[in-house]
Amino acid sequence: MVKKKAGVLGATGSVGQRFILLLENHPDFELHALGASSRSAGKAYKDAVVWKQTGLLPKSAENIQVEECKPEGRFADCDIVFSGLDSDYAGEIEKNFRDAGFAVVSNAKNYRREPDVPLVVPTINPEHLSIVEKRVTDAKAAGKQKPGFIVCISNCSTAGLVAPLKPLVDAFGPIELLTATTLQAISGAGFSPGTPGIDILDNVVPYISGEEDKMEWETKKILGKVNKQNDGFDLLSDDEIKVSAQCNRVAVSDGHTECISLKFAKRPPPSLEQVKQVLRDYECDAAKLGCYSAPSQTIHVLEENDRPQPRLDRNRDNGYGVSVGRIRPDPVLDYKMVVLSHNTVIGAAGSGILIAEILKAKNVI
Amino acid sequence: MVKKKAGVLGATGSVGQRFILLLENHPDFELHALGASSRSAGKAYKDAVVWKQTGLLPKSAENIQVEECKPEGRFADCDIVFSGLDSDYAGEIEKNFRDAGFAVVSNAKNYRREPDVPLVVPTINPEHLSIVEKRVTDAKAAGKQKPGFIVCISNCSTAGLVAPLKPLVDAFGPIELLTATTLQAISGAGFSPGTPGIDILDNVVPYISGEEDKMEWETKKILGKVNKQNDGFDLLSDDEIKVSAQCNRVAVSDGHTECISLKFAKRPPPSLEQVKQVLRDYECDAAKLGCYSAPSQTIHVLEENDRPQPRLDRNRDNGYGVSVGRIRPDPVLDYKMVVLSHNTVIGAAGSGILIAEILKAKNVI
Amino acid sequence: MVKKKAGVLGATGSVGQRFILLLENHPDFELHALGASSRSAGKAYKDAVVWKQTGLLPKSAENIQVEECKPEGRFADCDIVFSGLDSDYAGEIEKNFRDAGFAVVSNAKNYRREPDVPLVVPTINPEHLSIVEKRVTDAKAAGKQKPGFIVCISNCSTAGLVAPLKPLVDAFGPIELLTATTLQAISGAGFSPGTPGIDILDNVVPYISGEEDKMEWETKKILGKVNKQNDGFDLLSDDEIKVSAQCNRVAVSDGHTECISLKFAKRPPPSLEQVKQVLRDYECDAAKLGCYSAPSQTIHVLEENDRPQPRLDRNRDNGYGVSVGRIRPDPVLDYKMVVLSHNTVIGAAGSGILIAEILKAKNVI
Amino acid sequence: MVKKKAGVLGATGSVGQRFILLLENHPDFELHALGASSRSAGKAYKDAVVWKQTGLLPKSAENIQVEECKPEGRFADCDIVFSGLDSDYAGEIEKNFRDAGFAVVSNAKNYRREPDVPLVVPTINPEHLSIVEKRVTDAKAAGKQKPGFIVCISNCSTAGLVAPLKPLVDAFGPIELLTATTLQAISGAGFSPGTPGIDILDNVVPYISGEEDKMEWETKKILGKVNKQNDGFDLLSDDEIKVSAQCNRVAVSDGHTECISLKFAKRPPPSLEQVKQVLRDYECDAAKLGCYSAPSQTIHVLEENDRPQPRLDRNRDNGYGVSVGRIRPDPVLDYKMVVLSHNTVIGAAGSGILIAEILKAKNVI
Repeated sequence: MVKKKAGVLGATGSVGQRFILLLENHPDFELHALGASSRSAGKAYKDAVVWKQTGLLPKSAENIQVEECKPEGRFADCDIVFSGLDSDYAGEIEKNFRDAGFAVVSNAKNYRREPDVPLVVPTINPEHLSIVEKRVTDAKAAGKQKPGFIVCISNCSTAGLVAPLKPLVDAFGPIELLTATTLQAISGAGFSPGTPGIDILDNVVPYISGEEDKMEWETKKILGKVNKQNDGFDLLSDDEIKVSAQCNRVAVSDGHTECISLKFAKRPPPSLEQVKQVLRDYECDAAKLGCYSAPSQTIHVLEENDRPQPRLDRNRDNGYGVSVGRIRPDPVLDYKMVVLSHNTVIGAAGSGILIAEILKAKNVI
Repeated sequence: MVKKKAGVLGATGSVGQRFILLLENHPDFELHALGASSRSAGKAYKDAVVWKQTGLLPKSAENIQVEECKPEGRFADCDIVFSGLDSDYAGEIEKNFRDAGFAVVSNAKNYRREPDVPLVVPTINPEHLSIVEKRVTDAKAAGKQKPGFIVCISNCSTAGLVAPLKPLVDAFGPIELLTATTLQAISGAGFSPGTPGIDILDNVVPYISGEEDKMEWETKKILGKVNKQNDGFDLLSDDEIKVSAQCNRVAVSDGHTECISLKFAKRPPPSLEQVKQVLRDYECDAAKLGCYSAPSQTIHVLEENDRPQPRLDRNRDNGYGVSVGRIRPDPVLDYKMVVLSHNTVIGAAGSGILIAEILKAKNVI
Repeated sequence: MVKKKAGVLGATGSVGQRFILLLENHPDFELHALGASSRSAGKAYKDAVVWKQTGLLPKSAENIQVEECKPEGRFADCDIVFSGLDSDYAGEIEKNFRDAGFAVVSNAKNYRREPDVPLVVPTINPEHLSIVEKRVTDAKAAGKQKPGFIVCISNCSTAGLVAPLKPLVDAFGPIELLTATTLQAISGAGFSPGTPGIDILDNVVPYISGEEDKMEWETKKILGKVNKQNDGFDLLSDDEIKVSAQCNRVAVSDGHTECISLKFAKRPPPSLEQVKQVLRDYECDAAKLGCYSAPSQTIHVLEENDRPQPRLDRNRDNGYGVSVGRIRPDPVLDYKMVVLSHNTVIGAAGSGILIAEILKAKNVI
Repeated sequence: MVKKKAGVLGATGSVGQRFILLLENHPDFELHALGASSRSAGKAYKDAVVWKQTGLLPKSAENIQVEECKPEGRFADCDIVFSGLDSDYAGEIEKNFRDAGFAVVSNAKNYRREPDVPLVVPTINPEHLSIVEKRVTDAKAAGKQKPGFIVCISNCSTAGLVAPLKPLVDAFGPIELLTATTLQAISGAGFSPGTPGIDILDNVVPYISGEEDKMEWETKKILGKVNKQNDGFDLLSDDEIKVSAQCNRVAVSDGHTECISLKFAKRPPPSLEQVKQVLRDYECDAAKLGCYSAPSQTIHVLEENDRPQPRLDRNRDNGYGVSVGRIRPDPVLDYKMVVLSHNTVIGAAGSGILIAEILKAKNVI
């Protein structure tokens, strides 16, 4: 099978490096174009990047010549473009690519709140991709050129939060109240300069700029539904769900821990065993579609009383599996639990790759 | 002024070492007796202890001969006994001392739930000490010997939690709902062996045995009132306040961070500015009594958006001051905020010392 | 091809867990027997172990019934026995297995200094195995039963140290003076209790019991040669090489960093480029033999000025490759450099597995 | 007694903040002027700084208006100027102040190698200050205006290294060979951005730009003597002492650990007990002069086998005392030992303050 050609925007950054690692030896995609700032353009990738991943820089990427982030050059041949751009630049560049007819899967926040841009955790709400699928199908049917589009990856801490919620909502109806306190890894902050050592050594920083607002807002889009016209989304309203997040940075390299608590609208709420069973039984569509990166178990329900832990559990299903532990009754709401998700896999670049796999499986790219 | 003689039970342990440090050059107390296991008894303290404090082992303690934990020997002369005993031993030993007529201030959990034992955060609910004051006064009045008693220090994470609550309840009436997610320091776990390095290096452990239950229960006793007979306490009922705690161990040496959220019974609730003002204005009784260790500011209301942080704020008022930051409206309950308290000072040994200072100021010892 | 049956002694400990992980899906070996203390014996492994590895407990091990560490039961069928026993127990148990005719590959220190026990880093001095090969061959030739034997894995920090030395000695003759200061990971300390969190959080412990002596002594055996009779080893004498080690524990999970400095006997010494070239060109015998775990590159010579780093480089060649960086002239001796090795792979269990692969490739087992 | 007026250059940076903390309530100096970049100039200090110290921002500094770093304005009144400037700016600014007649004590590296600039660890080689003392005395005698001068604080890791060396050289004559491997704290890297969290979480960085060269060179100046003309220094030559340093950054907030090894010229070398005794007996001149910050014990010789440790020992004598432990014979050189020094006190700002105290005691300022 011919592999789709993939480009990476923001290739020297933290998220860009992760995209490159995940594309190595991928059965569906081959790395073809790398975009970065004009400072890096013209250099071989290995000379342009300060590689900071625990996996080695893939040989296949070493000698690709970095280009500026424009829909031309090697990018012109790409079937899909992954964006790890900083939000300072993502707005204009991603728009340029979309307008030039490219499929863009972006980790930046810029377009997440656009009415016609899907905001997707691929193991959780891949059905939101249907609005781009429709656009592509309609264009084909009309004999028009394939339209460009942007799909946004959710915020890293939102990804972990919605993972257990979606199956629960599907099974038991709306969640009315939701609180989440996060203990977030530093890899989410990138590394230019990222979290200073002095901030996480023997310390906690109880604040991440913009993060709480993102979690509270994005949850309402992801748990919402595609609208009837299949061209946008019916977000949950503040009346339907109230969400409160408190975000902390802690001394963890990878893996966001979230202590969440929720109250169902349904009275009486489902039993503890029902909650666990629904999470255990959940199988994501990506797995059903046979996507390469799809987790064999989307949600791991752990019964040990001191789990999940980032060091021990973040790599389940190569980081695409989310772990949920300590599910127990909550004296204030209905249930509380601890969720662990790998912030650079299911919470960032990894989700981008799996989204692309779904788009390919559905012939959208 | 003649100093009161102080004894320390469990003197070689983590809490015992802290008591010894805090008693160094104390104007009210002098270290007189040290109790530990029979393995240590008979040795000079400096030979019995593996000293793990950042402050050096006080000269005054070095050569005190360690004794077994019995109300005799050097302990016989003590006016007050501080207990840093493990709960495995505290039950029997503290009872023996109390029955022998000693004033015991204990960090162990064993007697916290006893109806006639005050559970005290000295900057928050020192009025609970009135029941032992009464017992002592009554005995004096009746010409009887001074009765022994036990006063318990609260759990370390409870101490930080109740600090801002008490002034708020006093000002605005009952809190109905309360949630707290903690990020707790490892010093709270002692060091025999304490938290293993492998558990906190690049990791979070989302579980501390018994801790959530302690926080939920102790809050109801500390926020409750002394009963009319002044011989026990009217605990808050589950109907009056629902409390939910989620406890995590993180890579911090000292200082518990707690993300809390609360809902007042009063509708509409007080304004954000009212909440802050009450906390800022709170002055603890210990300060009014002129106690040596009393914080000049009991609650520090921080306005920077990324504070409090353990490394930067735990030592305010020598660890007796509690910092509260990020006070803001909560979409689910009324307000959320971040509380930081020094777990070995206001959360453990330090509270014991300040309790003793109050008891002395009130002529109970 | 029929896999050899493998047993693991000390199966619930840190090293035992690593053996089990490395044996999962191994082409040469299948896990067959698990030995632990009488407290664990009789239980399914998953119920006996507190699993602390980042890789999940292999399914194949979960339900093996743990036995006591005796050469009977399931162990009776084993072709090879890996020992992760504590030195408190290893002495007697390993002797029992050897006397009962078993091939024992041990991580314990007990027999490392025995004259007829090879002390082996499998990528460095596999020729030391020839003395057990001879014993087995001789027995076969004489029609006798296969004799039991013990092979010892070197100390974890010795393994990293000797890796670059051996090729240099082979190429340029003796090293006269050798100093090494280590920055060692905590995984080397096991986890019962292992390094306490309080010792490595914002701290360095400049001492590891017995470690410096092990490094200084073991280097002389490993760099020595098999004697002429092929039944023992000619150790380097103190006159031939002087070794000085200083060992520190630091806040790293896996991967020992060693700052080493050396002086060749040869005057003038080889050039900097010659030193690098020899290290780059070194190919280990295990790779030539086609052993499954052998590294494709035994020694990685890094040219970046800030490498190797544990987080970035410890997993090269699955932890079997050793990284050497910052090779540069030394004002005091001849050259200094930084060596990084994965302490639980090439420094412990991983070496045991590769030793067994070599033994199998040579028909010793 | 009237306090001398002190200015701080680079007041918003890491070292500047430390100067400000140390000047709080100082008996000899009062903070009078604060200099920073034009971006900060004109603001109250509390609005210009991001305060990152564990001690709170002193009230006395809060409202001082920050100025540009010019020898005018409030600086015009200063008796002494402490510089925490980045080396990018220190060269010109410090020269301007010196030329304008100011006494400048600098933490920057720019003038350390100037022939007529003393490079001083105040507890170790305060006699190097005699050349500025002479210049000032000569000017006074000649009825001229007091001349400006610069005194440089040594590099932080050099300070710890030379501390035990100086008393040994004084007692036993030259040290011929010296090796040092450092494990350095992150506070030495400042915080704009300082060491990234990702570099020190579960990691070691075996490289600090320029550091090894500084240690090797500065040692030769500090252990050298004032020349006969008392206007410069006779540095030790490479023939007199060979020094080799290897520098690592580790996950420690404050406190540099150094594993050092040395060989005396004297044969046979002094005994182990003689070495210890000389270190124990060393009393620094600053203590004899009664300087406020001088340590009561300059060098603490620790006998416990696992000390010194940064967390436990860095604050001895408020960070002005250096701890030396594990003194033992070295198989390669004569003796090896572990040295711990507080890198922001004796290794940086603290030394600056103590140098100024000495200058004041000697009427140089």
